[in-house]
Amino acid sequence: MPLTLDQLNTATQQEALQLLDGLYEHSPWIAEAALQQRPFQSLAQLKALLAEVVTQAPREAQLNLIRAHPELAGKAMVSQNLTAESTNEQAKAGLTNCSPAEFAKLQQLNADYNSQFGWPFILAVRGPRGTGLSRTEIIATFERRLHSHPDFELQECLRNIHRIAEIRLNDKLGLTPTLGNAVWDQQEQLAEFSEPGYKENGQLTVTYLTDAHRACAEHIQGWMLESGFDAVHIDAVGNVIGRYEALEKNSSSSPLSHKDHSPKTLLTGSHYDTVRNGGKYDGRLGIVVPMACVRELHRAGRRLPFAIEVVAFAEEEGQRFKATFLGSSALTGSFDAAWLDQLDADGVSMLAVLQQAGLGGADKSAALQAINALKRDPAQYLGFVEVHIEQGPVLNTLNLPLGIVTAINASVRYLGEVTGVASHAGTTPMNQRCDAACAVAELALYLEQRAAQDGDSVATMGQLNVPSGSINVVPGRCCFSLDLRAPSDRQRDALDADVRATLAQICQRRGLQFSLQETMRASAAPSDALWQQRWEAAVAALGLPVHHLPSGAGHDAMKLHELMPQAMLFVRGQNAGISHNPLESTTSDDMQLAVEAFMQLLEQVV
Amino acid sequence: MPLTLDQLNTATQQEALQLLDGLYEHSPWIAEAALQQRPFQSLAQLKALLAEVVTQAPREAQLNLIRAHPELAGKAMVSQNLTAESTNEQAKAGLTNCSPAEFAKLQQLNADYNSQFGWPFILAVRGPRGTGLSRTEIIATFERRLHSHPDFELQECLRNIHRIAEIRLNDKLGLTPTLGNAVWDQQEQLAEFSEPGYKENGQLTVTYLTDAHRACAEHIQGWMLESGFDAVHIDAVGNVIGRYEALEKNSSSSPLSHKDHSPKTLLTGSHYDTVRNGGKYDGRLGIVVPMACVRELHRAGRRLPFAIEVVAFAEEEGQRFKATFLGSSALTGSFDAAWLDQLDADGVSMLAVLQQAGLGGADKSAALQAINALKRDPAQYLGFVEVHIEQGPVLNTLNLPLGIVTAINASVRYLGEVTGVASHAGTTPMNQRCDAACAVAELALYLEQRAAQDGDSVATMGQLNVPSGSINVVPGRCCFSLDLRAPSDRQRDALDADVRATLAQICQRRGLQFSLQETMRASAAPSDALWQQRWEAAVAALGLPVHHLPSGAGHDAMKLHELMPQAMLFVRGQNAGISHNPLESTTSDDMQLAVEAFMQLLEQVV
Repeated sequence: MPLTLDQLNTATQQEALQLLDGLYEHSPWIAEAALQQRPFQSLAQLKALLAEVVTQAPREAQLNLIRAHPELAGKAMVSQNLTAESTNEQAKAGLTNCSPAEFAKLQQLNADYNSQFGWPFILAVRGPRGTGLSRTEIIATFERRLHSHPDFELQECLRNIHRIAEIRLNDKLGLTPTLGNAVWDQQEQLAEFSEPGYKENGQLTVTYLTDAHRACAEHIQGWMLESGFDAVHIDAVGNVIGRYEALEKNSSSSPLSHKDHSPKTLLTGSHYDTVRNGGKYDGRLGIVVPMACVRELHRAGRRLPFAIEVVAFAEEEGQRFKATFLGSSALTGSFDAAWLDQLDADGVSMLAVLQQAGLGGADKSAALQAINALKRDPAQYLGFVEVHIEQGPVLNTLNLPLGIVTAINASVRYLGEVTGVASHAGTTPMNQRCDAACAVAELALYLEQRAAQDGDSVATMGQLNVPSGSINVVPGRCCFSLDLRAPSDRQRDALDADVRATLAQICQRRGLQFSLQETMRASAAPSDALWQQRWEAAVAALGLPVHHLPSGAGHDAMKLHELMPQAMLFVRGQNAGISHNPLESTTSDDMQLAVEAFMQLLEQVV
Repeated sequence: MPLTLDQLNTATQQEALQLLDGLYEHSPWIAEAALQQRPFQSLAQLKALLAEVVTQAPREAQLNLIRAHPELAGKAMVSQNLTAESTNEQAKAGLTNCSPAEFAKLQQLNADYNSQFGWPFILAVRGPRGTGLSRTEIIATFERRLHSHPDFELQECLRNIHRIAEIRLNDKLGLTPTLGNAVWDQQEQLAEFSEPGYKENGQLTVTYLTDAHRACAEHIQGWMLESGFDAVHIDAVGNVIGRYEALEKNSSSSPLSHKDHSPKTLLTGSHYDTVRNGGKYDGRLGIVVPMACVRELHRAGRRLPFAIEVVAFAEEEGQRFKATFLGSSALTGSFDAAWLDQLDADGVSMLAVLQQAGLGGADKSAALQAINALKRDPAQYLGFVEVHIEQGPVLNTLNLPLGIVTAINASVRYLGEVTGVASHAGTTPMNQRCDAACAVAELALYLEQRAAQDGDSVATMGQLNVPSGSINVVPGRCCFSLDLRAPSDRQRDALDADVRATLAQICQRRGLQFSLQETMRASAAPSDALWQQRWEAAVAALGLPVHHLPSGAGHDAMKLHELMPQAMLFVRGQNAGISHNPLESTTSDDMQLAVEAFMQLLEQVV
């Protein structure tokens, strides 16, 4: 009989500790401390509390916890001295069936890792879906993490330990994240479609209206139909639209109905195109999570007092054409007619691409007419919500599966150049230099300090270059870029003004000239207060801490913001939240929580 | 009757002031202050004192001095309201014969310059030889200086005013720097030889054993013969050697004779090859200055108790082959046999090049034998002295024509790379970044501060680059170079150790990795105390301030240092001391002082 949360809540401390035996390898103190905080509202809450105990523990206790774990395919495995849980895990990952070469490789990696960091390598070998990583994946991860910084690697080991504990806890309770696994599997299936030149290298690339892109759209369309959506179609720009209608069409009493008394619609979704060699979850998670919710509603025969419209946006990444947010722009009426004339790298126009896909109509004017007709009437909508993988390290670092987005950050970008005087590195005394690079170095350090002062601003010098620099020449020129972002326009503008004033001061003081060219400026899209509150209530209902964070990246919600209230939910990314990269990852447990949070959100709309 | 220094020293203050009337445009206060310091030991001293008065004056007085000057080809010239001196100068430069287009151009430049800086453009239009710049040269300088920093440009105007005063003073005293002009003219004649691909663009390029290089050698050889050298030849590597023998060959009492009682030899010289598109003075000045001295000795029928050997080194710059200091290496016995197999850009070996030039013998072994025979026996030499243009801004900034070199700096060079974690510029909070570029920025600023702390160390990050940097990606890698130099090995080593320790600390604190690859390390060549004292006495004998400075660049003296005591004299470079550049320049007045200082040096050797 699997353990229940109720059992755990009602048992004596000693009994409860026994029930959680083996959760953290040879470290019962963690469960012991967490159990002090009973009753647990949810399994998710228990997991969060356990992780928090470790986070609050001294570094020495954290190191002991890590060292309490066996090496992967190490001596303890060979001599069968593992805990029951570790034996099960290493066996599931096939480590007990290593080839001699793999075994030798793992021994070498264990030795290298241990001498590098002073503790054993910890990896949750059952992986993000709980079903076990392949030996190839394990070895690749092992090799990659050998190059991490020790501080980061210590935290990464603890995160893997929490993931191991999560799976062990799921096993104890006999729970499988069924909805999360389904969401995981759909993203895995979508990732089967990739463009030639990438697919054969195991890379995921799906750009606007390629064959791989069209295949994704068809698959999403098919899933929507299977899930019980009432109407599904692909629109004139390639967005896949599924509608799940409301309970009643003519209730005059419902606050969710607009003036002609038909129920309003909640709009949600995200994009299914990818960057080149991207991840599997960026965008797609925000399509499959609400689809899972509609499927559950349909399965339960439930309708809500409002309709749900799920949009799989065809284009957000601006990869094939310079037309970022194309899909959501069509819905907000801001599709730029000039985009149709843009050529891709092969010289094919967007209009031709649309026509080849059977979209867009006979000519440009027909295409534009069809696209303009896609514009939504905000009066018919309650708002837009979007679920998205964080694409940053915040939730991963805090061991939190979900986060509430407060705003999509305002941003401004510049390309800059400082001009000094190139001179002989040997013969020019330090006090007679006009070193362009040192001025830019000062600015780089100011960016760090000034953005940190705000707490939630970010400032980046991503490009930095002394053109034709020579080892023995004082830099006469230095080129750089600036990317400044903050949760509000006001905060961005203050940051921007300070950075520009500081650059001017630095150059004035050093006797240098500078130029700055603004290349991009975007306003903040603060989350709608009511919709943000609904996400907060939804996350709290799962027993999870409510953590707020801004979105540093742009999202389709940023475009929809022009038309209606919006708010986003972020899902934790593994691997320090890396994105636009094959290492982008999240777990099916976190996806399960995203589905549950979305269901909770739907319950908040009354 | 021209004015004499004696007259100036004995006149009343009022009379003397009258005698110097018009020296500094509408600004008698400068001569007035300088005259307080009579008697003047030399014209050079008077010039230095005048300049010092202006340097010590408040900025407002300096600005008034600049504003007391007329615009070039400006209203005052047109309406004939210039001072007599200015009228003469502007006429000599041909400004009164401008074409309408040139006149319009100059008016525009005057207007632009005035609005840029708030004072008129000042240029000593009689130029570095006192004979007048061309209108093309004037317009080019005007255009170039429009882009200077105001602080630099103010000083550059004052420097030109001192140059104008120098020429006016020469005129008053009826003095011409005859020896300096001869030295100037020889360098001008050598600059007529340049390689195809450069010569037609007015660029100077003379690399090892090209036709232009051979022509220079022949010219130098011819001049040496004309100057009265006793023996002149071109050696097995292309060095041109001229010997002027000592007074007596068998005086056992002379301290300048070695054990077999024949007189010792003072070795001097510099190189006649150039970098590509280089200057006319780098190296060559150190050949023609001692040649002028020997010519004067010969003309006066004088011999000294020691021989003088002037070497025009064939190669120092390492341009055609990677064999820097080839010429001086042959004399120190450190010619690398492997150099003979090196190929130039056209695939021609150094051996073949030597053979084509009629040098080097029948085969490699004959060539090596001939080269090895060039090694000097230090017992036969008093030491090595070298005159060289400074190639840096120090003397130019201080308004000093000559400087005493204390040491050729020790140096060390590295190529480095810092590795962090590339991450999303929008989504990675400031406190979770591993920004490689910010670490390198910190190091760049530390270099500045740490080298300045020594006073005479220099530290340069000449190369700085975020490879494949993106505007929206936190830099995961940053490549850079380090060039550290100091007057002693000990000081260089301390600087080096501090820089490396700081890099390690920065990376440790920021959680980054780094690598450093040493690419070059050269020991310091401190000047020989006795020979340095002789240079000091020589400069003091001219009435000039004795200013010490290290040499940041390498010179032939650095090689000779391996074999015998050495000391160098630096001559001021115009244009902030720029070198390896067509703008490299010095005046014939400064060249005259270099010849006089060299003559004085010879008198010191007793």
